[in-house]
Amino acid sequence: VPDSSGRAPYRLWGARFERGGLAPEAEALNRSFPVDARLWREELEAEAAWAEALGMAGVLAPEEVERVRAAIGRLAESAASAAGGGTDRAVPPDEGDEDVHTWVERRIAEEAGAVASKMRAGRSRNDRAATALRLWTLRALDGLDAELAGLQAALVAQAEATVDALLPAYTHLQRAQPVRVAHWFLSHVWPLQRDRERFRDARARTSVLPLGAGAAAGSGIPVDRERLRARLGFDRVSPNSLDAVGDRDFVAEVVAAAALTGVHLSRLAEDLVLFASAEFGFVRFDDAYSTGSSLLPQKRNPDVAELARGKSARLVGDAAAVLVLLKGLPAGYQKDLQEDKAILFDAVDTLRAVLPAMAGAVRTLRWDAEASARACDASLLAADVADALVRGGRSFAEAHAVVGRLVREAESRGAGLLDVPAELAAALDPALPAALAEVAAGPARSVERRTVEGGTAREAVLRQLDAARALVARS
Amino acid sequence: VPDSSGRAPYRLWGARFERGGLAPEAEALNRSFPVDARLWREELEAEAAWAEALGMAGVLAPEEVERVRAAIGRLAESAASAAGGGTDRAVPPDEGDEDVHTWVERRIAEEAGAVASKMRAGRSRNDRAATALRLWTLRALDGLDAELAGLQAALVAQAEATVDALLPAYTHLQRAQPVRVAHWFLSHVWPLQRDRERFRDARARTSVLPLGAGAAAGSGIPVDRERLRARLGFDRVSPNSLDAVGDRDFVAEVVAAAALTGVHLSRLAEDLVLFASAEFGFVRFDDAYSTGSSLLPQKRNPDVAELARGKSARLVGDAAAVLVLLKGLPAGYQKDLQEDKAILFDAVDTLRAVLPAMAGAVRTLRWDAEASARACDASLLAADVADALVRGGRSFAEAHAVVGRLVREAESRGAGLLDVPAELAAALDPALPAALAEVAAGPARSVERRTVEGGTAREAVLRQLDAARALVARS
Amino acid sequence: VPDSSGRAPYRLWGARFERGGLAPEAEALNRSFPVDARLWREELEAEAAWAEALGMAGVLAPEEVERVRAAIGRLAESAASAAGGGTDRAVPPDEGDEDVHTWVERRIAEEAGAVASKMRAGRSRNDRAATALRLWTLRALDGLDAELAGLQAALVAQAEATVDALLPAYTHLQRAQPVRVAHWFLSHVWPLQRDRERFRDARARTSVLPLGAGAAAGSGIPVDRERLRARLGFDRVSPNSLDAVGDRDFVAEVVAAAALTGVHLSRLAEDLVLFASAEFGFVRFDDAYSTGSSLLPQKRNPDVAELARGKSARLVGDAAAVLVLLKGLPAGYQKDLQEDKAILFDAVDTLRAVLPAMAGAVRTLRWDAEASARACDASLLAADVADALVRGGRSFAEAHAVVGRLVREAESRGAGLLDVPAELAAALDPALPAALAEVAAGPARSVERRTVEGGTAREAVLRQLDAARALVARS
Amino acid sequence: VPDSSGRAPYRLWGARFERGGLAPEAEALNRSFPVDARLWREELEAEAAWAEALGMAGVLAPEEVERVRAAIGRLAESAASAAGGGTDRAVPPDEGDEDVHTWVERRIAEEAGAVASKMRAGRSRNDRAATALRLWTLRALDGLDAELAGLQAALVAQAEATVDALLPAYTHLQRAQPVRVAHWFLSHVWPLQRDRERFRDARARTSVLPLGAGAAAGSGIPVDRERLRARLGFDRVSPNSLDAVGDRDFVAEVVAAAALTGVHLSRLAEDLVLFASAEFGFVRFDDAYSTGSSLLPQKRNPDVAELARGKSARLVGDAAAVLVLLKGLPAGYQKDLQEDKAILFDAVDTLRAVLPAMAGAVRTLRWDAEASARACDASLLAADVADALVRGGRSFAEAHAVVGRLVREAESRGAGLLDVPAELAAALDPALPAALAEVAAGPARSVERRTVEGGTAREAVLRQLDAARALVARS
Repeated sequence: VPDSSGRAPYRLWGARFERGGLAPEAEALNRSFPVDARLWREELEAEAAWAEALGMAGVLAPEEVERVRAAIGRLAESAASAAGGGTDRAVPPDEGDEDVHTWVERRIAEEAGAVASKMRAGRSRNDRAATALRLWTLRALDGLDAELAGLQAALVAQAEATVDALLPAYTHLQRAQPVRVAHWFLSHVWPLQRDRERFRDARARTSVLPLGAGAAAGSGIPVDRERLRARLGFDRVSPNSLDAVGDRDFVAEVVAAAALTGVHLSRLAEDLVLFASAEFGFVRFDDAYSTGSSLLPQKRNPDVAELARGKSARLVGDAAAVLVLLKGLPAGYQKDLQEDKAILFDAVDTLRAVLPAMAGAVRTLRWDAEASARACDASLLAADVADALVRGGRSFAEAHAVVGRLVREAESRGAGLLDVPAELAAALDPALPAALAEVAAGPARSVERRTVEGGTAREAVLRQLDAARALVARS
Repeated sequence: VPDSSGRAPYRLWGARFERGGLAPEAEALNRSFPVDARLWREELEAEAAWAEALGMAGVLAPEEVERVRAAIGRLAESAASAAGGGTDRAVPPDEGDEDVHTWVERRIAEEAGAVASKMRAGRSRNDRAATALRLWTLRALDGLDAELAGLQAALVAQAEATVDALLPAYTHLQRAQPVRVAHWFLSHVWPLQRDRERFRDARARTSVLPLGAGAAAGSGIPVDRERLRARLGFDRVSPNSLDAVGDRDFVAEVVAAAALTGVHLSRLAEDLVLFASAEFGFVRFDDAYSTGSSLLPQKRNPDVAELARGKSARLVGDAAAVLVLLKGLPAGYQKDLQEDKAILFDAVDTLRAVLPAMAGAVRTLRWDAEASARACDASLLAADVADALVRGGRSFAEAHAVVGRLVREAESRGAGLLDVPAELAAALDPALPAALAEVAAGPARSVERRTVEGGTAREAVLRQLDAARALVARS
Repeated sequence: VPDSSGRAPYRLWGARFERGGLAPEAEALNRSFPVDARLWREELEAEAAWAEALGMAGVLAPEEVERVRAAIGRLAESAASAAGGGTDRAVPPDEGDEDVHTWVERRIAEEAGAVASKMRAGRSRNDRAATALRLWTLRALDGLDAELAGLQAALVAQAEATVDALLPAYTHLQRAQPVRVAHWFLSHVWPLQRDRERFRDARARTSVLPLGAGAAAGSGIPVDRERLRARLGFDRVSPNSLDAVGDRDFVAEVVAAAALTGVHLSRLAEDLVLFASAEFGFVRFDDAYSTGSSLLPQKRNPDVAELARGKSARLVGDAAAVLVLLKGLPAGYQKDLQEDKAILFDAVDTLRAVLPAMAGAVRTLRWDAEASARACDASLLAADVADALVRGGRSFAEAHAVVGRLVREAESRGAGLLDVPAELAAALDPALPAALAEVAAGPARSVERRTVEGGTAREAVLRQLDAARALVARS
Repeated sequence: VPDSSGRAPYRLWGARFERGGLAPEAEALNRSFPVDARLWREELEAEAAWAEALGMAGVLAPEEVERVRAAIGRLAESAASAAGGGTDRAVPPDEGDEDVHTWVERRIAEEAGAVASKMRAGRSRNDRAATALRLWTLRALDGLDAELAGLQAALVAQAEATVDALLPAYTHLQRAQPVRVAHWFLSHVWPLQRDRERFRDARARTSVLPLGAGAAAGSGIPVDRERLRARLGFDRVSPNSLDAVGDRDFVAEVVAAAALTGVHLSRLAEDLVLFASAEFGFVRFDDAYSTGSSLLPQKRNPDVAELARGKSARLVGDAAAVLVLLKGLPAGYQKDLQEDKAILFDAVDTLRAVLPAMAGAVRTLRWDAEASARACDASLLAADVADALVRGGRSFAEAHAVVGRLVREAESRGAGLLDVPAELAAALDPALPAALAEVAAGPARSVERRTVEGGTAREAVLRQLDAARALVARS
């Protein structure tokens, strides 16, 4: 019988073994409290719901339900205060319990007495662990959505201030075409929006109640699972008990979505690191988001962006790890699944560390519109020259070839595209001087030609900005 | 100017270089036709839509549009016949083109003459490649949905035949509780259903038109993107041109979902491999899904299941590869993105090879209900004995401890749980003999106690079966 | 100037910024002390070596070198006692320093005064971090080698006790051929030996001194790197300063080797989980390495093996993460590299948790030789019957076909291979009855036919056992 | 009995099944010839060695051995010619065989008659496949070594030409310190050298003979494995038959090393893509290694470098895939292992496509020494100013702080570090003007201060260049 009188381990099992204790190295490997302690809030919530369910099933008397609920209330309060604050990483002190389920049962026993030992009826750690982790994940998803919206808001705010600034769009890291700086800022808003959608879709598949599945076959006590579902705020009840205890799709899906978010952050970070270099010089991070070097006094390092890029690696590793964990396991619960939590927590924690730092760095950065405008050299107008030739009757392939030769000519003279003498241009194509004249107004005119939806003309960007603002407002 | 007179390379670029040709090893690395040729159908469809859009924008005359459309019609026909059949892997012969876009332009030029060279106006390979790949992916998703439904149907059919057969549910690969065989079959239906949902969600984010984004800044020709969208059957128009050409989220998301599907198949496969072993002996694969050994004449190997399990590895590798590919790239198009196709094709091909083979293997397997019933030994009733003690007034923790000691007693005598002499049982707990008598009816009675939703009682399983049948019917 | 008077942050940089402090969320992201504090021992060692090098280069006076060395000695002592013990995970209390390098400089300043601020000359955190991490890794590799040898020893000890026991070797999880149990135990020793070799090879590439590379270009102070190397016990000096600060191959290689070790453990674990099932029943884990269920009183779960299998997932995730981290980074140091430590530590910690637990579980398991012998049914002799037919003049292909038909015949009668009536056997091939008689001696005779090197005959296994024992002794 | 008369499938197994044929979708999944046909050369070599071994064991008569050898000789010749050339990807036409082993046996039967069917004695596809794949891998490793040396040679050749050119070394993509361009080129030679070492170490573990291990228990025919080893050129004989057929460590190790090579290529590629941008402008790729845009006539894209970077993703995916494949498999052979080949081939093919293209691109690139020298602005001398202050008696921490304030002063005036008026400098620190004067000689002087081994001073770089040249010469 379990012993709850202090340090001697309180166990949810053991009478079947001659020797109750695990070898120390097995104990160290097996004990999950240092990781799963973070589920204490959700575990207590589920515990209260279960007490009610047992009450309705006649396993607990009404006053026993009350005693358990009161005990849980006190526990939640004291655990919250012991955990010392509101973050979801705060946990009660580790008193050596095997896992959070053992901790909860032991603590309820200490608070409410023998009724605690009735609470275990009709369920197992298999359905309990799945229930608590799903509740935790639902909250984590809400937090991530807010953080993502926060970064979107920072990008949108910058976009609002940079509608009339230009920079080159790069492809292959070569200058390609001029675009509005706001257009570039907004190009990083949409990937984050897809991330939010993916998390929302994952949420629907997370919001499924496993409690009542028991160890594998369904609870032996005819609890009302629909009522449990409503009580705990899940959207659906799991349809198959074996699947319920062995399904970690929600972990895999959330972590995969987190990895893709990480990749988006790495791309934004890459752009920012490039733009903050001396060579580009478009962006200056605020001092509050820059670090220095212990050796080189002049350095001003974009560490936040670099760490965002680097931490995407953890997320990709986590996404792979969940899949490896599940690969080849038989249906139902296997102990391997215990590893799910460390992976999920790492992915969520990583994003929740990176997102606000990136939001702050973006919100406070200064864009150097003159520098980015200077980078919009005449070569960026090559496609416009070709388009002008097309308007003059050339096929695009012909126009492309003519402008290609013009580029070569200009390069060989070390001149800009618009600086090739008119007679030389005319020799390449009689229509070329006129086409060159047409684009001579420069990049500001070029961007205004891109009026298609999603294009970089002023009006199109303003429409896009409206749409982006709505995403942030909605969050 | 491009030369379309045969083997000399037709190129979509080049006049700007002194020396037109790539070094052979650069050419070999760069040329993507051997991979992207599979996009020929989608590329032709997009080509026809683009011709119409250019017509409406006044870049092509109506008769030019007609000429292009007719040429595309002929090309589609001859390519289909050259490709030799209906599968989406069939491709036209490789005549050395750089990529499928070059192939299409060259072939249209051969069929329709100079108008082909006008077709390139206002777009680039960046938006073209993204458009064709998205169209291809939409079709692939439809195919995957059907294959998944096919495997679900095979599982449901087996479940219908095995409602009254029992097997032990295993946790930790130890016999845990008796469940209906149908319950086990159905436990593999629900993960596949989540896969279908994930693919459906990914579909919504795939169905976004990039065409009109140009190289990066939006098309310089004011085409009507909304009309293009409707014409090509996309749900939405991409909101930002830079994002449109650099976004490969849909690839990452589809491949991640495919990897999770692969993991589900590996878990089903693991169960089947176990159950087909001499030691379990629950399942016999049909000869049409079994292979032999070149050395051991007696062998009857479950190769289909093993390959399904093994091929999940490719899918996990693919899922990691997409993320690595995208990690740290600047916004917009970089040549690295060319690798997206090989990864996506591999993931889709792998699933489309495994799913029908698994469906066939499941559909034709024979379940040995006697063997699986024999495995439901008395130890599986331990939780029921405890539940009976709880009904008799013990707390579950007490009952658990009593039964634990009973198990130890039985083991030490080499006896079954129900074969411990009554007086010995009574010595452990006076209520124990009655509890043992209560469960003596065996596993058939035990499963009937699990009436909760998702449980393994007959009625609950029949309701579950109805729900599963509906999923398959709907597909 | 840094302020070392307590909580106000001591920084190795900052004068170049208007505002010294980082925003809280940037600080939280940037601060690595919670992770890199584990390097304190190695950092102090390198610090002492550097003080001497600066002394020889004339930057520090001899008495300053002495003062620093004395301070480091006191620090090492007090940190060891604050860290509270000998494990390499014990760290000094977190007093808010940015990283372990800042902690060390601040503490030396507190102990030795102004001389501490001279110590930073000629190096940067880039070469310091690489040096400390390499030193740590060299020790970790020694620890891993010992743990691997410990598991090998447990396997060898079991092999010594099971030379004359038999079990079926399985391929495709189908019974294939009888082998000695010792042969099976030893089959898991060799993969671990390859792991040890891989770690040893990685060690050679880890044992390269980066100190003196400075931030990127080499130290501006002409220190004697060869002497530093000898002093710190490295095998070689890094040949290029840019490579020295950006190279994390040793992390990638160690973590990749760890992942393969994890996979080996997962395969051993899979065998053990299978063999511990009721269906196989070959293995019984000691109570000290078994756990129970909170719901099912009869359960005896092989958690150690399952966790070993599950934790291989983390290791694969870690191996992927290092590669993702490094992918696409420019040469030299980027802040991303800060993430290397968390990944490496996780991989080493995971193995160091799993290996001793598996060693204990293997050392104490009981093999049920009767059960495994019972599983060696007559079907395992099919290849021997074919071999006998070959000795009688049939080609192997003919013999294989004859025995295949015999197997089918036996199956259709529900009989064993040796129980098919002689006249029926003779009808399949006149030589068959004699061949069957030849193998009737059973599996014990069959294994003795495998005398080739690496085979399962007694003598071959004893030779193999000798070789395996030597590996363990050597460690 | 197998039917070798043409299209009807020749099978190495089947008599034990009622129905010989596999269902089409199972056949499609199972058939590996399209992948493993590449092993035909190695399979034929092993076949010849096996014939001799059977001859020595008395299973084949001497004239039978001769007949088989002659047949193999003819087959090798005709297969080589059918395969149409020398590359290791060329394969004989696919005539529908299940795998390369079936193809070989069928073809030998066609050439040499009934003796072919004796050849199968004493071995299985398990040891055959492992043997052929190891032979193939040994050759692939030789090829990779040569390709790696080729890229090293290209880098060394560029280094020889750029000893006296300077560029900024970047950390955090911020200009850090001036270094010789040769130093930068050489910084990419050493990672490739570690790759070569890793492949060499993997080679030692690949060069182990599995043949003779049979299906699992060791060959039933007492062949001389030591002689087989010598005949086939392996270094060692596998010590345990179960391990021999299930060990794929060599695949995992080679693919992991390939992935790290891929990461090195991605880092070199990243540097090159950066340096080829308009903003950096240090590098111009030869036309033979540059591509253009279909829309933007001015574009000059570094596709080779981008593809090298992108293809590292496949390699990381492959490295993960092997580990996932092996994770959780029981010891010995499982069909899952069939997937090893596609992964290994992909990794080797990828590197062998990328390495020569990168070598060509590096060999032919033009470095713009003026541009890279221009980028070495005065800020890069900040550490030198601090060093000068240290020589003048400041501690490094003090000097760092003074120079930090100088940097801020210079920035606020939009001036360079050396252009701050002397009196202002003196106000920051009286020793500062002298220190500034000391470094005024500029970056050429700065690099000469880095004389430590591995530093960027001329003499140190020349020594490094010698060492690098030796690596290439040795190959």
